[in-house]
Amino acid sequence: MSGHDTESTGPAEREAGRRTPAEEARTLVSSVIVGYLATVGEEGDPWCSLVVYGPTAKGDPVLLVSTMAEHGRNLLHDPRASIAVNDPSAPGDPLDRPRITLAGRAVRPEGDAYEVAFDAHVAAVPGARLYAGWEDFTLWVLEVERIRWVGGFATMDTISQGEYRYAEPDPTQPVAARSIAHLNSDHADGLLLIAREITGARGAVSAYCTGLDRYGIDLACTGAGQSAATRALFDEPLEKAADVRPATVALVQRARAAREAGD
Amino acid sequence: MSGHDTESTGPAEREAGRRTPAEEARTLVSSVIVGYLATVGEEGDPWCSLVVYGPTAKGDPVLLVSTMAEHGRNLLHDPRASIAVNDPSAPGDPLDRPRITLAGRAVRPEGDAYEVAFDAHVAAVPGARLYAGWEDFTLWVLEVERIRWVGGFATMDTISQGEYRYAEPDPTQPVAARSIAHLNSDHADGLLLIAREITGARGAVSAYCTGLDRYGIDLACTGAGQSAATRALFDEPLEKAADVRPATVALVQRARAAREAGD
Repeated sequence: MSGHDTESTGPAEREAGRRTPAEEARTLVSSVIVGYLATVGEEGDPWCSLVVYGPTAKGDPVLLVSTMAEHGRNLLHDPRASIAVNDPSAPGDPLDRPRITLAGRAVRPEGDAYEVAFDAHVAAVPGARLYAGWEDFTLWVLEVERIRWVGGFATMDTISQGEYRYAEPDPTQPVAARSIAHLNSDHADGLLLIAREITGARGAVSAYCTGLDRYGIDLACTGAGQSAATRALFDEPLEKAADVRPATVALVQRARAAREAGD
Repeated sequence: MSGHDTESTGPAEREAGRRTPAEEARTLVSSVIVGYLATVGEEGDPWCSLVVYGPTAKGDPVLLVSTMAEHGRNLLHDPRASIAVNDPSAPGDPLDRPRITLAGRAVRPEGDAYEVAFDAHVAAVPGARLYAGWEDFTLWVLEVERIRWVGGFATMDTISQGEYRYAEPDPTQPVAARSIAHLNSDHADGLLLIAREITGARGAVSAYCTGLDRYGIDLACTGAGQSAATRALFDEPLEKAADVRPATVALVQRARAAREAGD
């Protein structure tokens, strides 16, 4: 088993087998539908409000807002806007929670662009079909120009517009939590084998999966009174959620082969 | 049993035995520590970011932010700010979730005012003691001038500064969810008795508690193929969380007395 092939995977960050900040950003924006919108009033005063959105294929949030609401009126006279997104289901200290701010200009799409944007919104917010036709509702695409990503305490990055637009949301994100729970409840032996044979935690007596993404899995290993955070990479980046199961099975097989080769 | 005495309870909204919009707003602001802050950059462009806060006795959010962060730099050159707060643990459609926007000006308190504000912040965010002394951190009090409250679909109100400042957060909020769960799991008979004898749902065969606040409890009643949402008021508004238990016991006793009187 030759291990992880990094030749065709692109940017430097990917060599380390982790999502890039731009991929983290796109994954977060795709996994949530609630954002907080900052707009400015007629006197330039900032106004913050809750919105729901669906992202376009480039990651631009599509909003459907009423001119009866302050943010709807604000956008009509000043299209500058910024949206903050985080996953409130993430456990722990809110300041250690991954989050992102997207800033740019809101535009009103027309013709085909309207249809594409509308589809992006209702894919995330199906209930919007009910009020989309009402006279006071306007569809806006926030064309993202500036991106600030915070991964947690002291983990942050500014992401360029190009990096953001061309990064892919992680296709395994929708099943990651469920897959982690399944691995921990039903495959503790397999995880321990992966920890010992692939991640180099030779003395581990237990291994617990703490993360899963398209590139690999994170393990918390304990043994001999010590603990270590390790990571095992899949043979290649996963392309869809359904790849998680065969890829984790393949990891266990690789670990088993390594043990037999070492015996 | 004379029922609910409304004579000394004040504003018209309270006559109906429900929290006023200002009380809802103060209760929400006191029950959450995460908000989303809108500030403006040097070119007047809006910026939205996650913050943690603790409210003063008047409900003004106290922030402790770094000038290394964009929002910290923004406040230094333009103190106008707005903060959006909602309870992400509320179930259901996010657009039907109670939420609030507070807008005003951020000021840097000095002397005794600094101590009071600092105490308000760390009461909500104890971890802030760790970085409060760091040079790049600034304590700000957002002096709230304008308040917009949304209770859910088509339930909204603009609250005046005076109403907001002088309204009290509901003292039962911290124990409400736990109390509701306890009533439903251990006191179904008592709830049914309250539904039948106090709220007038004579034909109810089951009653489920859906809400609890300092003024009373909400019930979802079913019977004879019908359902009804009803409400029973406590004898008087509760002053502290510890009042919930005796007040609900008193409700059951009142219901029992009414049944006996009717027999």
